[in-house]
Amino acid sequence: MPYITVNENLPGIRSLMAFRPETAAPLGQLAEILLHDENNTLTRAERELIATFVSYLNGCYYCHHSHGALAACYLDGDTELVDAVRKDYANAEISDKLKALLQIAGKVQQSGKAVRPEDIDHAREQGATDREIHDTVLIAAAFSLFNRYVDGLGTVAPTDLASYPIRARQVAELGYGPHIYATPQPVTP
Amino acid sequence: MPYITVNENLPGIRSLMAFRPETAAPLGQLAEILLHDENNTLTRAERELIATFVSYLNGCYYCHHSHGALAACYLDGDTELVDAVRKDYANAEISDKLKALLQIAGKVQQSGKAVRPEDIDHAREQGATDREIHDTVLIAAAFSLFNRYVDGLGTVAPTDLASYPIRARQVAELGYGPHIYATPQPVTP
Repeated sequence: MPYITVNENLPGIRSLMAFRPETAAPLGQLAEILLHDENNTLTRAERELIATFVSYLNGCYYCHHSHGALAACYLDGDTELVDAVRKDYANAEISDKLKALLQIAGKVQQSGKAVRPEDIDHAREQGATDREIHDTVLIAAAFSLFNRYVDGLGTVAPTDLASYPIRARQVAELGYGPHIYATPQPVTP
Repeated sequence: MPYITVNENLPGIRSLMAFRPETAAPLGQLAEILLHDENNTLTRAERELIATFVSYLNGCYYCHHSHGALAACYLDGDTELVDAVRKDYANAEISDKLKALLQIAGKVQQSGKAVRPEDIDHAREQGATDREIHDTVLIAAAFSLFNRYVDGLGTVAPTDLASYPIRARQVAELGYGPHIYATPQPVTP
């Protein structure tokens, strides 16, 4: 049960965004720019995989399933690849650049200070640009926020995993705008 | 030296916000609503103390000095109280409600899952409302982002502590709008 009184028809962060629309607006805009905006040399799938990986490391059930479903949606339903990235990205079938960026994201999940110059040098050697390194660190930092927000207020996550791909398709289409928290979404399909 | 090429005349997060103004806009709006907006039953000083405490726990030199200077600015220059909250809030001369909220913030700094129902119950017993508990969790989560962003990209923090109160007065007056990163600020007074 959530620690504060929220709309129980909304899962996870959506219930908190509806509770406080003033802060929901910039949080949604941040997610939109980092994850959904097409003006980015990282694909939407790559950015959602970084979000999924950090959320998995933080043990945030709602976030790693939500964003994992989004990554799979952008990967033509390849949930096996998403699972492989969550659990052992170094041996997953992804580019060496994305592996190097996930290495940085995993450090950021621990602490900003855990990132070492060698991690950055390695990402550059795999072709990562300043902007890609910036966005990777900020996505990992943003999920350090989102995961704590969702779990720190004890929000409810749907346990029916079949519901996540349905919502993922909505977000893939509409992005992270106010539709996320303005309209109650059914928790089950 | 920062890990990516940024304006070296801007310290800490300001250099990153100038590097990527698209993400700077929602990050600044989030800080404005959480920390500077007067429509809040927590004082600006209380909110900046929560930000300072989390940043101190994360060892983020730039953030805990910047926000500590802001808290002191709102407390008529009482830097001793700010130091006391950083280092041992349980024995600082602050309200029992703020102590209970700092207890929650300290848990969020570790992990969202570290917050227990007892922490929330204790805050309620001290008079905290749903909205105050929400804002405390989100401030602590936001600084889990800001601290990682600042340190994860290796930004430069001014070592001259006399410069922090000068910038703090600017932010106290103008808030967290684009002035923060649009105009190069001198790093020393």
